[in-house]
Amino acid sequence: MNRRILLAGAAAVPALAAPALAQTLPEIRWRLTSSFPRNLDILYFGAEHVAKRVGELTDGRFNIRTFPAGEIVPSLQVLDAVQNGTVEMGQTALYYYIGKDPSFGFFTSLPFGGNMRQQSAWMRRGGGNELCAELLKDYNCHGILLGETGTQMGGWFRNEIKSVDDVKGLKFRVAGMGGQIFQRMGAVPALIPGTDIYPSLERGTIDAAEWVGPYDDEKLGFYRVAKYYYAPAFWEPCAKGHLLINQRHWDSLPKPYQAALEVACSEVEPEMIARYDHGNPQALRRLVAGGALLRAWPRDVMQAAWRATHEVIEETAGRNARFKRIWESYKPYRDDQFQWFRIAENSYDNFAFSAAAR
Amino acid sequence: MNRRILLAGAAAVPALAAPALAQTLPEIRWRLTSSFPRNLDILYFGAEHVAKRVGELTDGRFNIRTFPAGEIVPSLQVLDAVQNGTVEMGQTALYYYIGKDPSFGFFTSLPFGGNMRQQSAWMRRGGGNELCAELLKDYNCHGILLGETGTQMGGWFRNEIKSVDDVKGLKFRVAGMGGQIFQRMGAVPALIPGTDIYPSLERGTIDAAEWVGPYDDEKLGFYRVAKYYYAPAFWEPCAKGHLLINQRHWDSLPKPYQAALEVACSEVEPEMIARYDHGNPQALRRLVAGGALLRAWPRDVMQAAWRATHEVIEETAGRNARFKRIWESYKPYRDDQFQWFRIAENSYDNFAFSAAAR
Repeated sequence: MNRRILLAGAAAVPALAAPALAQTLPEIRWRLTSSFPRNLDILYFGAEHVAKRVGELTDGRFNIRTFPAGEIVPSLQVLDAVQNGTVEMGQTALYYYIGKDPSFGFFTSLPFGGNMRQQSAWMRRGGGNELCAELLKDYNCHGILLGETGTQMGGWFRNEIKSVDDVKGLKFRVAGMGGQIFQRMGAVPALIPGTDIYPSLERGTIDAAEWVGPYDDEKLGFYRVAKYYYAPAFWEPCAKGHLLINQRHWDSLPKPYQAALEVACSEVEPEMIARYDHGNPQALRRLVAGGALLRAWPRDVMQAAWRATHEVIEETAGRNARFKRIWESYKPYRDDQFQWFRIAENSYDNFAFSAAAR
Repeated sequence: MNRRILLAGAAAVPALAAPALAQTLPEIRWRLTSSFPRNLDILYFGAEHVAKRVGELTDGRFNIRTFPAGEIVPSLQVLDAVQNGTVEMGQTALYYYIGKDPSFGFFTSLPFGGNMRQQSAWMRRGGGNELCAELLKDYNCHGILLGETGTQMGGWFRNEIKSVDDVKGLKFRVAGMGGQIFQRMGAVPALIPGTDIYPSLERGTIDAAEWVGPYDDEKLGFYRVAKYYYAPAFWEPCAKGHLLINQRHWDSLPKPYQAALEVACSEVEPEMIARYDHGNPQALRRLVAGGALLRAWPRDVMQAAWRATHEVIEETAGRNARFKRIWESYKPYRDDQFQWFRIAENSYDNFAFSAAAR
């Protein structure tokens, strides 16, 4: 090993032993397809960081090329593409696949489930990651947590929602189990691709649409055609992303390359949420200045949604043994977390947030 | 390079290019002294993970030995020891050093400051890390974020606090700026080392003591001698740890070793808070079963503390130009975060936490 070259290389990139790898580990080129478009830049940063950091950590020998949604694989088919080995890996949100098995819903965000920290605790320490691995194994995938959005916003509505009656008949673009819950409350859920939402709202083909939160929503300009901006997305109290790796490809990776992927995903976790928390307040201020009318859900909507959610969950558990088993892990854990968070975190937040506003 | 050896080594530990390093980078042995005792095992995990992961990532060539508080350096002198190069690095909480400069208080947790995510956003994206680096430079240190406890509990009290009048004359073991705030409210703050708290409470030398939260507090058994357990620690709405590295030693490290330290600290960030969030509810249940009486601060205590906090901060800003400059970054950021979090996160938490309790 040439020490001069090593140090020159090391100075150029903050790499772990990068040049030393050059002679010892295989050169591979993988493709990473994302469920997210490039303009959801904080989400897409997750994919880009993985590619960049893994490249640095392996002196470019493990080369990952990222593709935004739709370029080589449609947004909602990332799991299929990774399962089949069409691509080696993908960035996605597992709740996109509740049509295959509703159990996928637990591992991104459950309606009226844990917030970011509570979901993290369940995944990391409460058995969630193990249950997820078990499910993914049936789909020939290895999964690693990859970032988080925080509690999302409830979306953009052309008309004000004054009570649960106003939900009836509402044509609402809403994803995943949220759709089943709104349907039970009388709405007509529609799943429209991101690019079609704006014209559909403008023409009134749909009455409302949810997306992510202020930072991402601002770019799509919904506030110009549907001014009422509701909070929160009780069906998305957090939203965790995953990196999926085809199981055979994962098994074939040298351990240092597996570790590089784990490290890179780990770095994304605190950074992605910091980017959202940093960007959202500024975006919200601009949205409100641009005419968005901020609204909280009426209490009867929240109450009806709480009931509808638990009915949908219990019915699903009655039909799907795996879903039932995961819910039996999830529910008591969630309830314990809720109870504990009320005491310190939430009592602090409630007092401090309102004291600062006076 | 012997490929057979490489792969054997790679299989044994999830190391990044570990064996490849063996012939290229220096063997070094460093000491890491912690401000925390071994029995604060989630905090101490931060130090241990850094040592373990860096060892794995460098095939043991960068060897770090960890020492709990007091073994080679007293708990509250970690900054001094790292500054002087007595040890190469240390794990600590920067607010222990507000006696040297009150500005240190901003980088762990500010009374009535941001919660975990808000503080993270300020540190990572709002300029906090840069302001921290500037301060640490004067102390000859390089700092990296190393984990977090979440909002702490307000501590153990021998008698119930029914109003702000009950705070007057109270001998309260409380750390940092919290002491100044309670003093302004009429209490007599005392800073007693962890090991002396229990006997002092038992004898009535002090009336109350705060430590961390249920998981850590349980081990010290305070509930047996001071039953009233108050929430929250408004003077510690989060608490971020740091890894400090002597600047000269940091500069001397090969880049791959610097990256290994950064990676290891990054991995601690989501894992430490998940351990606290996982352990706290279970510990709290045992504490309550053992006789602890859970109490929220009376509203007039919170209000008096809010006023006292801002008086202390403004007066400190009047005396210390650096503190003033940091507060001018911190305050508007905090207020924006508070305003935004009320809308989605907090409105979700408030509804869901109480709905589940019914």
